[in-house]
Parts: sequence; C-alpha cells; structure tokens
Amino acid sequence: MPLFDLPRHELETRRPDRHEPPDFEDFWLGTLAETRSYDLAPGVAAYDLALPTVEASHLSFAGFGGQRVNALLLRPHRRLVASPPVVVQFLGYGDGTGSALDWLALPAAGFATLVMDTRGQGARARRAGRTGDLGGSSSPHVEGFLTRGILDPADHYYRRVFADAVRAVEAAASLDDVDTDRIAVAGTSQGGGIALAAAAWAHPVAGAVVNVPFLCAPRRAIEVTDRAPYAELVAFLRTHRADAERALSTLDYVDGVNHAAHATVPALFSVALMDQVCPPSTVYAAFHHYGGPKRLEVYPWNEHEGGGTAHDELTIGWLRELFDQ
Amino acid sequence: MPLFDLPRHELETRRPDRHEPPDFEDFWLGTLAETRSYDLAPGVAAYDLALPTVEASHLSFAGFGGQRVNALLLRPHRRLVASPPVVVQFLGYGDGTGSALDWLALPAAGFATLVMDTRGQGARARRAGRTGDLGGSSSPHVEGFLTRGILDPADHYYRRVFADAVRAVEAAASLDDVDTDRIAVAGTSQGGGIALAAAAWAHPVAGAVVNVPFLCAPRRAIEVTDRAPYAELVAFLRTHRADAERALSTLDYVDGVNHAAHATVPALFSVALMDQVCPPSTVYAAFHHYGGPKRLEVYPWNEHEGGGTAHDELTIGWLRELFDQ
Amino acid sequence: MPLFDLPRHELETRRPDRHEPPDFEDFWLGTLAETRSYDLAPGVAAYDLALPTVEASHLSFAGFGGQRVNALLLRPHRRLVASPPVVVQFLGYGDGTGSALDWLALPAAGFATLVMDTRGQGARARRAGRTGDLGGSSSPHVEGFLTRGILDPADHYYRRVFADAVRAVEAAASLDDVDTDRIAVAGTSQGGGIALAAAAWAHPVAGAVVNVPFLCAPRRAIEVTDRAPYAELVAFLRTHRADAERALSTLDYVDGVNHAAHATVPALFSVALMDQVCPPSTVYAAFHHYGGPKRLEVYPWNEHEGGGTAHDELTIGWLRELFDQ
Amino acid sequence: MPLFDLPRHELETRRPDRHEPPDFEDFWLGTLAETRSYDLAPGVAAYDLALPTVEASHLSFAGFGGQRVNALLLRPHRRLVASPPVVVQFLGYGDGTGSALDWLALPAAGFATLVMDTRGQGARARRAGRTGDLGGSSSPHVEGFLTRGILDPADHYYRRVFADAVRAVEAAASLDDVDTDRIAVAGTSQGGGIALAAAAWAHPVAGAVVNVPFLCAPRRAIEVTDRAPYAELVAFLRTHRADAERALSTLDYVDGVNHAAHATVPALFSVALMDQVCPPSTVYAAFHHYGGPKRLEVYPWNEHEGGGTAHDELTIGWLRELFDQ
Amino acid sequence: MPLFDLPRHELETRRPDRHEPPDFEDFWLGTLAETRSYDLAPGVAAYDLALPTVEASHLSFAGFGGQRVNALLLRPHRRLVASPPVVVQFLGYGDGTGSALDWLALPAAGFATLVMDTRGQGARARRAGRTGDLGGSSSPHVEGFLTRGILDPADHYYRRVFADAVRAVEAAASLDDVDTDRIAVAGTSQGGGIALAAAAWAHPVAGAVVNVPFLCAPRRAIEVTDRAPYAELVAFLRTHRADAERALSTLDYVDGVNHAAHATVPALFSVALMDQVCPPSTVYAAFHHYGGPKRLEVYPWNEHEGGGTAHDELTIGWLRELFDQ
Amino acid sequence: MPLFDLPRHELETRRPDRHEPPDFEDFWLGTLAETRSYDLAPGVAAYDLALPTVEASHLSFAGFGGQRVNALLLRPHRRLVASPPVVVQFLGYGDGTGSALDWLALPAAGFATLVMDTRGQGARARRAGRTGDLGGSSSPHVEGFLTRGILDPADHYYRRVFADAVRAVEAAASLDDVDTDRIAVAGTSQGGGIALAAAAWAHPVAGAVVNVPFLCAPRRAIEVTDRAPYAELVAFLRTHRADAERALSTLDYVDGVNHAAHATVPALFSVALMDQVCPPSTVYAAFHHYGGPKRLEVYPWNEHEGGGTAHDELTIGWLRELFDQ
Repeated sequence: MPLFDLPRHELETRRPDRHEPPDFEDFWLGTLAETRSYDLAPGVAAYDLALPTVEASHLSFAGFGGQRVNALLLRPHRRLVASPPVVVQFLGYGDGTGSALDWLALPAAGFATLVMDTRGQGARARRAGRTGDLGGSSSPHVEGFLTRGILDPADHYYRRVFADAVRAVEAAASLDDVDTDRIAVAGTSQGGGIALAAAAWAHPVAGAVVNVPFLCAPRRAIEVTDRAPYAELVAFLRTHRADAERALSTLDYVDGVNHAAHATVPALFSVALMDQVCPPSTVYAAFHHYGGPKRLEVYPWNEHEGGGTAHDELTIGWLRELFDQ
Repeated sequence: MPLFDLPRHELETRRPDRHEPPDFEDFWLGTLAETRSYDLAPGVAAYDLALPTVEASHLSFAGFGGQRVNALLLRPHRRLVASPPVVVQFLGYGDGTGSALDWLALPAAGFATLVMDTRGQGARARRAGRTGDLGGSSSPHVEGFLTRGILDPADHYYRRVFADAVRAVEAAASLDDVDTDRIAVAGTSQGGGIALAAAAWAHPVAGAVVNVPFLCAPRRAIEVTDRAPYAELVAFLRTHRADAERALSTLDYVDGVNHAAHATVPALFSVALMDQVCPPSTVYAAFHHYGGPKRLEVYPWNEHEGGGTAHDELTIGWLRELFDQ
Repeated sequence: MPLFDLPRHELETRRPDRHEPPDFEDFWLGTLAETRSYDLAPGVAAYDLALPTVEASHLSFAGFGGQRVNALLLRPHRRLVASPPVVVQFLGYGDGTGSALDWLALPAAGFATLVMDTRGQGARARRAGRTGDLGGSSSPHVEGFLTRGILDPADHYYRRVFADAVRAVEAAASLDDVDTDRIAVAGTSQGGGIALAAAAWAHPVAGAVVNVPFLCAPRRAIEVTDRAPYAELVAFLRTHRADAERALSTLDYVDGVNHAAHATVPALFSVALMDQVCPPSTVYAAFHHYGGPKRLEVYPWNEHEGGGTAHDELTIGWLRELFDQ
Repeated sequence: MPLFDLPRHELETRRPDRHEPPDFEDFWLGTLAETRSYDLAPGVAAYDLALPTVEASHLSFAGFGGQRVNALLLRPHRRLVASPPVVVQFLGYGDGTGSALDWLALPAAGFATLVMDTRGQGARARRAGRTGDLGGSSSPHVEGFLTRGILDPADHYYRRVFADAVRAVEAAASLDDVDTDRIAVAGTSQGGGIALAAAAWAHPVAGAVVNVPFLCAPRRAIEVTDRAPYAELVAFLRTHRADAERALSTLDYVDGVNHAAHATVPALFSVALMDQVCPPSTVYAAFHHYGGPKRLEVYPWNEHEGGGTAHDELTIGWLRELFDQ
Repeated sequence: MPLFDLPRHELETRRPDRHEPPDFEDFWLGTLAETRSYDLAPGVAAYDLALPTVEASHLSFAGFGGQRVNALLLRPHRRLVASPPVVVQFLGYGDGTGSALDWLALPAAGFATLVMDTRGQGARARRAGRTGDLGGSSSPHVEGFLTRGILDPADHYYRRVFADAVRAVEAAASLDDVDTDRIAVAGTSQGGGIALAAAAWAHPVAGAVVNVPFLCAPRRAIEVTDRAPYAELVAFLRTHRADAERALSTLDYVDGVNHAAHATVPALFSVALMDQVCPPSTVYAAFHHYGGPKRLEVYPWNEHEGGGTAHDELTIGWLRELFDQ
Repeated sequence: MPLFDLPRHELETRRPDRHEPPDFEDFWLGTLAETRSYDLAPGVAAYDLALPTVEASHLSFAGFGGQRVNALLLRPHRRLVASPPVVVQFLGYGDGTGSALDWLALPAAGFATLVMDTRGQGARARRAGRTGDLGGSSSPHVEGFLTRGILDPADHYYRRVFADAVRAVEAAASLDDVDTDRIAVAGTSQGGGIALAAAAWAHPVAGAVVNVPFLCAPRRAIEVTDRAPYAELVAFLRTHRADAERALSTLDYVDGVNHAAHATVPALFSVALMDQVCPPSTVYAAFHHYGGPKRLEVYPWNEHEGGGTAHDELTIGWLRELFDQ
C-alpha cells in the first residue's frame, strides 16, 4: 500500500516522544573536543579537469581520530562571484563524492560548496569515494555501516562520521575568498541525518537543508519499513536478540530527532509520503522536534527520490533568502 | 550470467550483417524534406531560475509535422566564454529535459548545450518533459514508444523523433553568439540511438558522442535480452505473430547500425559489457559499421550505467580535442 | 496483507464523496455531439474462419474524430436463435479483440455480441487488436494509456475511448436480425470502466455488467495500490509535481464513480476483495453511487481475476432475467 | 537470455538419444490391461447451464484402479452438426475442467469434445477440477504432482493419469451420435504430454495435437530450466541425492519422447523458442522421435503461451483436413 | 510493513472466538480408535553411521490406516544418561527427518528424542523424508498438503498426520531404557501445529513445546498473509468459490486453536512478531485458548525463524524444569 | 539456466591459469610472522549451558594484530572419548559461531572441534558472532567484507582473517586432552576458502575439508555470477573503474586457487554444479591446482547448499579414514 505510514493528519499533528540519553550533549561535546585535539590541517589540491566557469579542487582535513577525510570543493569562477556563501553537503548511504561534474548546481547558482566523503563509503555502483575508514569495531556487524560498533556509542560508526561533518564545516570556515559568515549544511537521506547533527553541533552554521533524512527515529522506522539500510538494524536485532535494547540505545545517540532538538538555525525539510526508505513518520518526528525556525515541503506521491531537482530549485531560493542574496 | 552476450574477442572482431532497406536514404531524405517544409521558427524564453554562471533558456522549434518541440538551452556566462561550441543532446527512454540544474556539466566545461525533449516522453519518475506527441498511430502498440506505428515506417514513432533531432541541430545552428561551425550531437541509451541518426542526417554536425546506444540491431537485441524497452518489441511480436516480419522490417529504418553506416563525422562510442538493456553485441554492431573516424571506450564490469560521470569527463576531453579547444 | 483495503463492513457502508466537475455532463454531451458529426458508417466483413454454430464477422464504424474502430461481431447461428439480444463488450487494459474463438460464451448462450477494440491497445502478449489511435497528446505521458493527454480533459485518451464506446452501441443498434431493443454493455477491469461510461451516455442500453472496474476513484486508488495501470498515474504525479492537481482534475471526467451516478439502467457489478489492481474500495465507490437498480457479487478471496467463468455463468443468468429470456 | 536453449539450427537437426526402458511397452500394456479390468461404465449428467447452440454434459468413467474420473462433454447442437468428430482434450498442470464456457472453440468449429479432469488437479487459481486422486504414494514428494511415487514406475502419479487418458478415449468411442471413427487427442503443456501417451496407446485415435508439451526429455529439461513444474524434479533430486538415478529412471516411463516413438497417427506439434517452462529442445526431442506423419509449428518469440488462439485457429484447419471435413 | 499484524497490545489482550465443530472431540476420538485398531508394531533398525556419544536408530510404527511411519530415534549414550526423558518432535512443512546429525541438540542435553516423518513430505531441498502417504483424496487440491481432501474432514490430509503423531507418542512410550513418564511433544511451524494436536490427544504427554505454529486460525491467517503454505488455501478458495465455506469448515477440525483448548499439560509457546508465514495473531489465538499452564516467549523483530538456537537453549531449560532434571 | 557454468567435461579437464603474485609466499609468511609477534594467549571460559555428553567452552586467542578472536570449543565427554582428533572449522559469509547446539555433529562423531568467529561477521539473521574487527580500511568499500581494503593486500580484510585462521589451528594445538597430531581444518563457502589458506600455512594440519569454497578464482567468478558476495566485487569495479586492475591484483593474494597450490595435506572437496554463489568452475580451479592428495565429491543438481548433512556424514567417514579411527 503506497500510503503505508500514518495518515497525513496524524503525521502533521502527532509529536512523538524522544529518547535522549542523559549524557547526550556531553557525549557529543566530548567527541568533538577529542576530535579537535588533532590539527584540522586543511589541504587543497587541484582538480584534474579544468572547468572555465567553476573552480574545483580536492580538499582534505583531519576528521575523527585525526584521519584524513576527503572532500570536493567547488566555487563559481571568481570573476563572476567574489565571495560566495558556502554549502557543506553530506552524502546518501553508499555514495561517494565522485566527480566535480556531479556537484555543479550550487556553484552555478552562486554558492561555493564543499562535499564531504562519508568515510568508508563510496563504492557501490554510483559515485566513487576516496576516503576509507580507519576505525574498526569491537562487535560484529551486518554488511553495511549502520550496525558497526552498535553495542557502544563510543564505538559506533556514526560517531566518527558526525565528528567528520563538524570538522568539514570548520574546514569550510577556514577557506579564503568565500563568505564564512554564510555557511549552511545540507544533505539528502543519510546526508540529511548528518546535516541534522552538523546543524546541532557545528560552528559557524547559518542554516540547514534536510531532505528525506535517514537516521531519525530508528525504533519507529524498523516497525514500518523493511527496506535497506534500516533492514541492517533489523537483521542485527534478529541475530543478537539478547543485545537488542543495548543496540537501540546506542542509536539514541545518533537519532536525528535528538540532534534536531539541539539545533536552532533555520531549516528547510522535505518529506515524501510514499518513501519506504525513510518513512514519513520518522521525518516528521525530526521536523516536529527541530529547535529552530523551520519549513517542511511535502511530496505526497513521491518515494525516496523526494522532490528531485524541482526541490533543488526551491532550495536555491530558500538559501538565497536565508543569505539575503 | 553477467557476461551474457558474446565473448569479448568475438565482440571485437565480428562484423554482423546489416539490413538496410533499399529506399533507406530516400526515406529519410524525404522525411526531412517534408519536415523542413515547416518554418523552423526557433523561439527562446527565459528560464525561471537565474544562475550567475550559466545562461539558461527554454528554446522551441518546429519539428516533424511542424509540431513545436521544446528544449533547454544552456551556455556558460558570456563574460567567461564568448562563442562556445554547441553540443545537442538527446535523452534516454522516458526521460524529459527536467531542470537546467540537470545539464550543467557541458556549460561548466565551456560548451553551450541544447537538450531536446523526446516528444511524448518525460513523465516517468525522473525528469519531466514539456513536449507531447501530436502524432497518433494506425496500429496498436505495446505500452511505450518503441512499437507505436510499427507496421509502417512512415507511421513509426521514431520517424518523428529522428526528424525532430535533425531540426534540433538546425535550431542550434540558428543561434547567435555560439560557434555554429562546432556543433556535436550526443546521447546515452535512446539518446545514443538518436545521436546516430542525427550524425548521419543533420547539418552541420562535427562529431557524435554515442553512449550505450538503444535502437541498434533490434533483431539481435531481442534474442539476448528480455529487459525493457526491447521487451516491448518482443511483446508485440508475441501477439502480432502474423505481422512479425513486417514489424521488424519497419525497425530496419530506425536501426542505428544502418544510420551509423551513413555517418562520416568522428564519433566516440561507449559500451558496457554487462549491459542487459542495450546488449554489447548490438552496440559493437553499430560501432563496427560506423562510417567515420571512431573510438570505443569499453566498460567491462558495468551495466547500462556505462561509464557514468567518469566517462563524462573523458567525453569533455574528447570534445575539446575535436574542437581544438 | 491480502485484505489490504478497508474492512468489509466499511466497504459496504461508506459512501465516499464524488468529485464531479460542474461541466461534466456538458463535456460528455459535447464530445458525443462532435463524434456524431461523423457518419457512423458501420461496415461488416466476413471472418476468415467458418464456424458452423456461430456467425462471426469483422465490424467497423466511425468512432471519435471519425476514426475507424474495429470490432468483432458474433451471433448464434440464425437457425437456432432468430433475433438475439446484443451485448456490447469492452476490453481490459492492453487487450485486443483477438480471435472469434475468444468470444464464444455469449453466442453459445444465445446472445449476439459486439466486442470493441480499445483504440491503440491490443499488442501485449495476449490478444491482438486491429485498431490504432490516430489521436496524439499535447503533453508527455508515462508508457501506457492512462496519462495520455492528462493535462486537459479534451486531450485525454479516454475521451476518445468513451466516445468510441457510445458509437459501438449505436453500431450494434444498426444491425439487422438482432433485437435492438435488448442491448446491454459489459466489461471487466478497463472494460468495466468503459461500460460504466456507456451505461451513462449510450442509447439504447438496457443493462450493464461491470466487473472489477478500472478507472473508478483514481485519487483513492493510488493511495492503496502501486500496481499497474494505476501506477502510471503515480509515476506521472511524481515527475510532474506542479501539475498534479490539474492531472487529477482531468481524471474526474473519466472517473467511473461520476459516470455511475448518471446511469439509470440495471447493473450487475462484481468486486474481489483481494484485488490490488482495482482495489475494492474504488469498486464499491462506483457501486454506491450507481444511479440505477443494482446488484453486487462479492468474491472474498479473489484477486483481479474476480469471479472468472463462474461469474460468467451467473452473468448469463442475470442477462436472461434482464431480457426476460 | 530469451533464446536460452540451443540455437535453432541445432534444434532442427539434432536428434538426441532416447532412454526407453526394456520393459516400456510391457509396462504400459500391463497397466492398461489392469485398468481395463474395471468396467468403463461411462455415465452422463446434464450440465447446469443450458446453451442453445451447444449441448454440454458431465461425463464420468472408470479410470485407473476403477476410480471415477470426471470430464466435460460438449458437442454442437445436433440440428447443425449431426455426427461430429471428437477431440479428447487433456489439461495443463494444475488446471481443471472448469466451466463449459471454457471449451466452446471446438464445438463452435463443428467438433464434439471431451475434456478430461487430471486426477487430483484443478484447484489453483484458474479452473476448478472435480476429480480427486485416490492413489497415494509410497515415497515422499515435492509439493505438486511430478514427483509423487517417483521411486517406482508402478507407484508414479502419471501412470494413473496416462491410464485415465486411454480410458477417456474409450469413453469417447462409446458415445452415440458422434463419429467414433474420427477421434483425435489434444493437449497443451501437461496436456500435450498426456496426448503423446494417448496417441501411442489409446484406440481408436486418428490424430494428435501436441502443444508445447511437458514431460518430454526431463533429464535435459532440468539442465536448462529452473521453472515449475520441472523445478519439482530438481528439488527432489537435491534432497534425495542417493535416489537420483532411480527417480530419473522412473521418469523414463513417462517421458513423452519414448511415447512419441510408439505413436503412428498424424500429429501437429507446436513449440515456442522462448518457452522456459517446456524448453524447446525437449519439445524438438519428442518431435524428432515421433513415429507418425508430423508437422511442427514454430513460434520464435513466444514463451509458454505458444501460439495462443492463433494456433487454435490453425489447429481447427489441421483437424478439418485430417478428418476430410 | 514489518509489523503487519495487530499491534502488540491487541495481540496480548484480544481473545478471538473459536470455531469448534460440535463433533470435534468425537471426530478425533473416533479417528484414534480407528487408528489403534492396527497393531502399533514398533520396529527399530540400526542407524548407518556410528556415533560414540549418541545412540541413533530408525524406528517405525503403524500410523493412520496401519501405514508404516518412519522416525529417527536418538538418545544420549547410556553410559552417560541411563533413563532419559523423551521429546517427540514433529517437523516443519515439507521437511523430512534427514540425518541423525540434524537432531543432536536434545540428546546432547540429556534427552532422548523421536523425530517423526510427516507422511508424504520430505522432498524439498532440505532434509529427506522416508515415508510416503498411501492416502489419496477424493477432491482436487492445490500443489502441497494443506488442501488435500479439504472438502471432508474424514478425507483431509492432517487427519492422517495428527493420528500418526499420537501413535508416535505411543511408540515412544513403548521404548525400553527411557523414562516413559516424562514424554514431551515439540515442534516448530507445522510441527508446532501437530504438537498442539498431540498435546490434546496423545498419552502419555507431560508437556508441549510449540514454536511459531502453523495451522492455527486459518480463517484469520489468509486475511493477513499471502505466503505459503497458507497461500495454498487461498488458491483453493479462489478456484472452488462455491465450496469455500465447506473447505474452511474442514479446517476447523485441524485448527490448532481448537486443539489447544483441549490440552491441559504445561506448554511453552514462541511467537515472532514479524512472522508472515504464521502470523502472530494466529499464534496468540492458540496461546490464549490453550487449556494448560503456559508461557509465551515473544521475539519482536524476528520473522518465521523465531528464536532460533537461542530459543532452543531456553527450551532445554524449560524442559529440564518440567522434568525436574 | 540451472547448468549455467561450463559443461561438466570441461570442468573436469580444464586446468585454468593461476595468477600468483611473485611475493605471494613472502607476503603470507611475513603476515604470519607479524601475527605471531603477539602472544597467542589462549583463554577458555565455561559455556553457559551444561550438556551431559559434550563439553563445550568459549575459547579465545590473539589473532592478527593481537586482537582477541573468539571461538567455540566442543569435545565429546571424556568418559567416552579420551583424546579426540580436532577439526578447526571456519564459517560461511556473515555467519557467527552462535550456540554450542549448532556444532554437535563432530563431537557426536568423536571429534573435538574448534569453531572460529570470522572477525566482524556474525550479525545477519542467522547465528550471532562475538568478535568485532578492530581493523579499518584506507579505501572505501561496498557494504560487506570482500572489498574492505581492496586496494592494498596489506590492508585487505582477508589478510586479517587468514592470519586468525592459522592462529586458530595453533590454539587447537595448544589444547590439553586432545590429539594434537590429528588436526584437520574444514569449512563451507567462505569457510572453505579460509580452510584452503589454513591448509597451506597453518601447522600442524593433517587434512582439509573444503566445501563449495568462496574466494577462488574471483576474476572468473564475476563473469559467471551476479550473486552476493561476489556481487560486492563487481559493484566496486563498477564504481572504481580506474582502480579495477589494482583491486583484482589484491585478490590474487586471497585467491584460494593460489593457496591450494601451496597445500600438501590430503583434502576432501565438494562442488555443486548449480551453485550460483560459488560457481563450479571456480571450485574446480582450486581443486585442479590443489597440491596434496585430493578427492572431489560432485553434487550435480544442488545449488550452494551442496551435499548438506549427507555430505557431513560422508565427511565423518573421510576424517575417520584420515585419522585411522
């Protein structure tokens, strides 16, 4: 049944409980402090293909544990746009930064953009990543990333990724010739979940774009969808029956609903009502708890593709307004 | 079995027979003469979203039967590139021109590009088209486009589309402030098949980019793949058993292998050896018969996605060389 | 979940709202007036295979826009049945009239039957049609028929088909040696949707058989099923997000629920409670709003096959009663 | 790959070895003698729905082990056809005789027809049967019929069915008012396999129609297809590894290739080259070994649906010629 | 939707109606009396592979109709465990007793175990059975076992199987050197349904282990799942529409909910909330009506695999407590 | 097509080329030397569930990089078997050691067995593992294990696993009360690939059991199967086109064909001819190059389940012969 989740009026009105661990803020502040103990050391290298209207480069920085994390950096040619705002983008599950040709929309629209590799990802039939994950895990995991280290928040994969994301914003803020007072974070699916964490913890961030986000309300998600990547979590719970509650508690530290509650900058959300990958009730949960000014664009008949490039055009308008462009 | 088609050495050496109808050239020259009896009447309208580095607009022109066909036109900002070459692009099956944000790669690389709607297409879960198809068909067809009017070459859907494609090149040649001596055609999948026809019949065309083309050697295709869109043809033959040879003969007028034999401009092909949508033996057939200077990029492990943006970067290099840029 | 739609008691009691456009009746009366501006010009040709107990022939007539529409006509041998009633039958999605051998049930039971090709259909792995659709569309469409011309009621595919259906009844009424006072319309799935329109607007019609009808309450249908052909509509809405309401409004002119409300002759409906192609709630919607005497046969465990030949036997009984045979 | 079996020229020329057990003929003659030890005792009952052009009735007779086997009997109204030839039809896997409305083609064409229930079958989502199978099996079997009693020819399911089929011909020969010198057997898929056995062993039989037959060359079949029902055999061999050769040897008694070699009456075969249910090489094997005059109709693009009603029309012509009608 | 059945609180509180036929007890007592008219005649044969810690043997006995039913018998080496309790195990759908190596868990834990073949089953890609089913059926059935003889309780397949199960307990009770005061029955899926019947009717039984049982509340099951084997029932109802209520009434005699109500010994149930093969509401129905002391272990995220070997360990503990071991 | 790989006679005769890197032996000897720089430090803990016939315990040891690797250790009760041989078992892809109840076959047959966790695995819907993988990777990978660190042999996941396997044998050799002169290695699928490496490099090993092994001839594997886990490799090559040869070269260090060539102890292989997970030609490749005395058991109709428990019984016989038991 295409409308498989709650009816729309319930989605719009029901504000579900959150499960924020008591040490949630300490955990993340501690993680970031530890991460910042390594020098950020941003490094830039020329991109191989010259593009006359866009300046592209490889950028890397020290992420969690000091590991080098790679990113692409693109900005409109400086003869056309002198000091552009910057949008730091995070990727969907399994995706990599690929080619500069994949990230031309924001530069064309007058923004610089930094696209961060999700460590370890970027090797599945789409865009290639350039960043491994030096972190191991002290517990077994289902093929994928969601359950790596799931028995301990300090060991969990997304602890490293979220710390990387905060550092990516700091790397953006370290750039010359861009407007570092106007930095936004953005992402779709997994990238939306990361953007929520970055909106909560990174500085300086002026706004967030959160499309059909993953990693929100996972306890609910696994009751309403059997699609990957949430299916990885179900598979883990099925095998590790005795550790189920412990695993779910680790995810409370990652849950976008909790991160949303700590964010205060303006945010643009999007949700698709037939999205079986990131079910609408989990997206609404994050939206309802989001702590800053917010707007939600609803796509009633779409699946996880959400609003597509139509929403990208809308997003450019929203960012221009945000940045008074 | 992933390597489901002929072994690579056979692909590389076997030059299969062609089935060119005796009146093939007359048919297409006649079709174009009839199409040109309508004034081309190119019209340009502003694109709704302003982009500081790219000038985007809606362009329309009179295609087959005088019907208006819509296209997107993008060019790098003229402060950066004064008189760019033009690449006329054709779309994959079911795709539409969508948003200007979808077509930024070539403008970023210094080319203007005109992206033509495929009449009637552009309504299936990806990019929206803006062009209907006023043509009907005098015979029944399988849901889709491949078998519309398949019992008569003059009634067949791709007669209209190929004529539109030639007119799109002429519309590009009518533009100001671009280098109309340097026009290439390009396309992937269905777009590759259309590009082959445009390479054969359109003027002025200086080169062709043909990625994993559809519409080549359909008699062979239906023996080795059951994937859509070739599956539409099989479905037709299954029902209209008595008209099978007539239907296949109509497709001889569309077969990219025959169009390839009439082309003389340099061409860059790509093929993916695990491509079940456009099987490699059908792509090699067009490549082997192609009448101009040619190069083939082989992707041994890819399916229909072919070389992706990696190939797009390679293509930009090939186009720059072609145009002495 | 097999019982995926509303619980049975809700199906039986809930009479959902209708969305009849203010000019609904004018639209259809105007369409028929325009269609009747062409001479009906029924033509009969001998069927190739001689059958000793059944007289079969090809019949054609001028449908919408004056286009020739083909049909099969069968009647019991006149030595056995002198002046039989006539049942005009409409086909399921993608089906064609095929062979006379496919339509022997009603003639064997003492009825003449006229089976109308659905223009453009009849080329998908089952029965072949003989009628193309000369009508084009001014907007893009999803592969299939449901979304052709969906942005304008006057341009929509089913406008042509429903007009053809009314003309088919008129062609039946023009026949010699049948009882033209006793004409019924009948159809299954798409054919059921067409029969509802014919019941509302064709003359002379004395009764209607409507099995698991398609084209009823499409706004509801796409919320509860993702099966084709309703999936074509969802695909369109997903791509043409901005035109969604306009598309749905066009379908209000086609919606069998609205046609049902304009019909007054006796009708036999059937519904299958596990039918994911034409969900039961959409069938009940048409039944509840049907304007004439009515009976509904419920098949609790069947999918879209509904009551099969068991229901065909029941239908023969119902028709005999209707016609006092 | 749609053309998954041998290339056509090999199909047409390669005459594979047969595996006829030394006691094959004795086995079947003994089986029939045992079956005939029960009185045939044909019984006729009126069919519930009266049809003015066709006389329909229920017929039953004593099959294997004396068990009552049900059939439908239809003949054209005797005012139109006085003494029609008879075609005894056998059913596809899982099918039942269903309604008289399902079997009108041959009566309409001037033949009587007797359609035999396949014992135990007729309960899977299509046509209902009326005949159970009182026979049990002394070995386990995979869900279905193919492996019932597969460890012993005397215990195997199809021993009972083939004996029933011979008795069905004898029941046809016992009828009044039909032309018992002109009896043919016919069937599609499983029915084709049964028809081959009946052609070999039943009397009086004047011809056989064998469409895309099942039960031919099973050793080959399971190497080239994984579709049901042959998949039942593979499943058995996978579990009962030690009994594999014994199971395959039992099927030698059922193999249509062996029965074909014992038949001498004219036969019309059909084969579909993309048929994954009854692979073409297995059908050609039976055709090549068939012992009587023979004709093969090839459907190059069809799957197991074969030639459909188009082939039914052709079959009527072939039967008329056979019977000098 | 993974949680496709009722919400957990409804599962836990809702006690659905039962449909016990008035002659239910008479039917089963009569069946057993008839079965016991044959001498049980237990026979033991050595198992081919010698195992130093476990004594394995083949055991057979006279089941329903006097037919020999095979079983495996294993017990811990008598130097280690002198007089072990016995657990009589029943198998899942299509499974066979296979190898002694498959049944080592209970002997390792100190129990003897007798594993009964389910007559006719044991030939589908897993473990091989050694027992055919000599019983036939007087009505057609869907491929499988659930609908064999479904139009008459006396003819139904599970009548034979449940009688076999009672006899298997009696065979266990006839063994030397085991503790026949301590016999439990156990099974998973189909085996769980059989165990419920054995718990109700077999003597001497001291306890029952019922995992994710099949055959409970089939009327409900077919409304919430379309998975095999319940799908066999739906297929039958779809074809045999007129006999639907009769078929469902036959299953009332088999329904584990009714057998549960007649059992009085302690029972350990397990249920998996995402189990689409044996939906949780059907398992809870049997649990709520179970007549003896009972415990239910709930696996919230598992499908039909339920608690796996983790639950097997728990079961060993429960059995030890039951038997004061 | 079930027999999708080479014909059997080619499988049996064709000895394909190997791709052994020049430093292959150095690489593995170096890896083991490095691993042995950590104290093996075997530790044993009681298993929670007491079993009267089997002594079970948790065993851990220092594997690659000194990381603790967990294993289960089972032996027949010492009153029955004093000094049993030991079989070290490795697991299939994604599997974990689970419960002692899962590993009772070898102890029942008189062997001790040590079952090693595959680091990081054991969390996918079957048996749970207890061992994480502290190793990270310096390159991105496809969800799963096969491509982790695939751009550098020293960084590759299976380097760690194979080193663990050698250490597991050493841990077995350190045990008291078992016969450390009689140690065999064994595994199925991934476990078979690991067993090949252990047979080549571990001491003391007296024999190897290699069932349907994974990790053999991966270049061939990805041409003939698209099933997981080989599909992970294809996905990587599709995205990381430029690094394809480098990735395949890393796998040369893992390829079981190369390890087989370095083994000299007797081996029992099994292969299934319809195995699409580990295609038969890749298994035969390892068998043909195996350096010691060898036997191959062929299962002609099985898929990846191979010989199942029937083969386990055969394996026990082979081991007994190997160990003169």
